[in-house]
Amino acid sequence: MKRRDFLAAGSVALVGVMLAPQLLAATQEKPLQILALVFDDYETLDLHGPVEMLGHMKNVQIKLVGAKSIIRSYQGPRVVTDVSMEQVTPCDLFIVPGGLGTRSLVEDATLLSWLNAQAAVSNKVFSICTGSALLAKAGVLDGVSATTNKMAYQWVMSLSNKVHWQPSARWVDEGKFLTSSGVSAGTDAALFYVRQLRGDDEARRIERLTEYHWNDDSAKDPYAVEI
Amino acid sequence: MKRRDFLAAGSVALVGVMLAPQLLAATQEKPLQILALVFDDYETLDLHGPVEMLGHMKNVQIKLVGAKSIIRSYQGPRVVTDVSMEQVTPCDLFIVPGGLGTRSLVEDATLLSWLNAQAAVSNKVFSICTGSALLAKAGVLDGVSATTNKMAYQWVMSLSNKVHWQPSARWVDEGKFLTSSGVSAGTDAALFYVRQLRGDDEARRIERLTEYHWNDDSAKDPYAVEI
Repeated sequence: MKRRDFLAAGSVALVGVMLAPQLLAATQEKPLQILALVFDDYETLDLHGPVEMLGHMKNVQIKLVGAKSIIRSYQGPRVVTDVSMEQVTPCDLFIVPGGLGTRSLVEDATLLSWLNAQAAVSNKVFSICTGSALLAKAGVLDGVSATTNKMAYQWVMSLSNKVHWQPSARWVDEGKFLTSSGVSAGTDAALFYVRQLRGDDEARRIERLTEYHWNDDSAKDPYAVEI
Repeated sequence: MKRRDFLAAGSVALVGVMLAPQLLAATQEKPLQILALVFDDYETLDLHGPVEMLGHMKNVQIKLVGAKSIIRSYQGPRVVTDVSMEQVTPCDLFIVPGGLGTRSLVEDATLLSWLNAQAAVSNKVFSICTGSALLAKAGVLDGVSATTNKMAYQWVMSLSNKVHWQPSARWVDEGKFLTSSGVSAGTDAALFYVRQLRGDDEARRIERLTEYHWNDDSAKDPYAVEI
């Protein structure tokens, strides 16, 4: 058993002795629910960079959702999904990674329709790299300022002229939508989300714990596109 | 089918028409074989940072090896193993990530014995974070200069006094053994391995492709421990 699971289980047992069941629920703070989409040929770091940083917050649950039980990354290793795409799952943060797989998925009407419905029950939606291509094609980003992978910028822009695409931004936060630039930018944007939700001290604690060098300024984009 | 698989399959078909089978094998360069150990509570980025960078090299196969078919990371998401630990698997690069799971695994005699045998059939061994704790306890790093997670430095040092532990190094390369500092340092060390194997242009291509900011100097260690 993991240390934090063990501690959580211990608290439940202790509180359970003292409180009636209806009071028990109120004393246990609900974990932050994070759901991440996976599909064949997703880009490894688009998913696992944010998972690393977000997963070090206290009281958080990260689950993967996909169209089948086992999904293969572009780099080879496979992950197991926890939740089926047959329904939508209300959550605090919904993550949409990018990768080569998005090139065909932008034509997948079933996925785009599900994305629309899933975004509607998500408190915040966070795309990395060409994950924003899927959201844009689904119409989820209409009227929203957003960014994407700068190496695939022209392609993503061509998918929707209703999005206010930003050519120079490590990430763009516009209330419900947090969209990051390519691959590694997702890790920086994830720490931004930690800071937004839990404060700068918590983001810095995780930065140190992971011996990371956080580009904490969304305006500092070394891969900005010149238009 | 992935684009590179498709291209590879196309080449095989084309060459197959023209050459006898015994010549065919010689014309197909064997992919670089990378094997990565996984165990419950491995640290997500220790594995997936290097997988991201190494997986963008041409003609490479990355496989996961573990004691069971499904392995859960410390952050929650699960991966599927490709290779069983019932035997050893000769490979070009053997990756050993760290994480909370190493705290109990340093006492697992079966794993330590397997690690010793697996290291012997690996051309190079690459540990990230407290992955070096496992290698040190297995005796694999005896007489070798190595580093580890700087947040867990005292614990790892206490496991073996036969290793020449380096308190200030983003990574240490000593021929057969490449050991990196904590979590994110593995991504930087992976690009070092790309440069060592395939040249600086290839490492820079992957750095740009992933919009990464590579700390390419092993002597630049912002988390160095003062002894």
